[in-house]
Amino acid sequence: MNGVTADKKIKRNHRIVYISQYLIEHPNELVSLSYFVDYFDCAKSSISEDLDFVREVFEHNELGVIQTISGVSGGVIYYPQVPLAQQNQLFEEIAHKLKQGKRILPGNYIYVSDVLQEAKLLNGIAKLIATRYQGKGIDAVMTIETKGIGLSVAVARYLNVPYVVVRGDSSEAEGSTISINYISGSLQTVKKMALSKLSLTPQSNVLIVDDFLRNGGTVNGLLSMIEEFDCKPAGICVLAQNADQEKQTLPDYVALLDAQIAYNKETGNFELQVKKGNFFDAM
Amino acid sequence: MNGVTADKKIKRNHRIVYISQYLIEHPNELVSLSYFVDYFDCAKSSISEDLDFVREVFEHNELGVIQTISGVSGGVIYYPQVPLAQQNQLFEEIAHKLKQGKRILPGNYIYVSDVLQEAKLLNGIAKLIATRYQGKGIDAVMTIETKGIGLSVAVARYLNVPYVVVRGDSSEAEGSTISINYISGSLQTVKKMALSKLSLTPQSNVLIVDDFLRNGGTVNGLLSMIEEFDCKPAGICVLAQNADQEKQTLPDYVALLDAQIAYNKETGNFELQVKKGNFFDAM
Repeated sequence: MNGVTADKKIKRNHRIVYISQYLIEHPNELVSLSYFVDYFDCAKSSISEDLDFVREVFEHNELGVIQTISGVSGGVIYYPQVPLAQQNQLFEEIAHKLKQGKRILPGNYIYVSDVLQEAKLLNGIAKLIATRYQGKGIDAVMTIETKGIGLSVAVARYLNVPYVVVRGDSSEAEGSTISINYISGSLQTVKKMALSKLSLTPQSNVLIVDDFLRNGGTVNGLLSMIEEFDCKPAGICVLAQNADQEKQTLPDYVALLDAQIAYNKETGNFELQVKKGNFFDAM
Repeated sequence: MNGVTADKKIKRNHRIVYISQYLIEHPNELVSLSYFVDYFDCAKSSISEDLDFVREVFEHNELGVIQTISGVSGGVIYYPQVPLAQQNQLFEEIAHKLKQGKRILPGNYIYVSDVLQEAKLLNGIAKLIATRYQGKGIDAVMTIETKGIGLSVAVARYLNVPYVVVRGDSSEAEGSTISINYISGSLQTVKKMALSKLSLTPQSNVLIVDDFLRNGGTVNGLLSMIEEFDCKPAGICVLAQNADQEKQTLPDYVALLDAQIAYNKETGNFELQVKKGNFFDAM
């Protein structure tokens, strides 16, 4: 191998490292091939070859799909994937964490949100959720304050779309708002939620994401809000639901976890039991 | 070049692609070399060579530093970096966005938070903030609900630490809480903030992150909260501050943007002016 060939190889290896990191850092974003061509000052055919190699490695390792879109406004899009082994490990880690600490609060309120505070778990969960909805024209991720915000932000990052936070108190929303009333919880209390008019573009496809589904009142409120903004719901996804709780009538939704409060005869305590939810059914 | 050598090269290229994406996806995380050794079923020396190459490419492209920590509990940590050209582009994009829409709300309230709703801007800003505090033993990122949560989540992701959200209303925090009173805004009203006792481990180094610094009352509240939890403040960083507004006495803080309301004689309107804040001074 002469010096010129060796130099070529190094340059090529340099490019595949750069391209790999760039795609990982820009999931669900259409990247023009000319970005890489300009960055490396090389031929488009070289970049295409590099992309072919990176694509193969990503697919071989279940890291996702690199799709090429031809034409003037074309380029490549990277759709992430969570390898099956990682999915199982993620579920084990969540289940392990949910075995620790006080999980059942007064009023049989199940507490799971701390799972979403940890960077690693949050990202794993968010990436998994994003893989289900990517490539389906989602324009925004919506949640209601406060505990679902972290998850929405993380899902929105992988989907490369904005996130929208509906406020529970219209006085704290900014500028002019649209408010709706909704029926919350098993006590059937009427609550109000509000969203700044500028937060959501009409005709958007909106993915609802939240931490926990109890009786579904909040989700129905968010669905009304989406309608008020002339938008369309594109899916409802929650980290966990209380499998035992009676629900309001809801469109199809998916939950990563089914949580249940079970009596442990041996310890005489009520304990939280967690299993995989219907999110995993069709996967 | 014979078949065996070619095969070796392909395997090596395969590894450098995988290692690159893995480090990018796991910023500020100590990754054991044996993870890669096991994954590829290859010699540790091969992984070390691969890491040397990836390190060189990352440094050459201002993507950050890959640090090797030797010893039994050693491995590699990837500290991200935002290339200078990207930093400037990011600032231009933010400034451009802040020129659009209604930015000055009643009470001279400056509205910037929508910048943090866009996945791309949010990540750029968060990565930049993280680069300032990484490697300094930050244990958690703290904010107060609601508008700073997105930024905190994104910064915490890059720092690989949990984020903690202080609630404005103790009744909505979960489990037992610690509450404090603080003086909010120029009207000197007394407000309350609360944090679940389990949310923050004592002795943590806590980075405060928020969207906007007005008179500093909220930040002083968060500092008191950190003290109540026997923790230490490790820094205060906001996206923007109102440069004209009088502030409470505060420890050193950094702002990415200085915002000012200026009268435009030609249009007869008040307009928002934005320039780089002291975050960029020492960079």
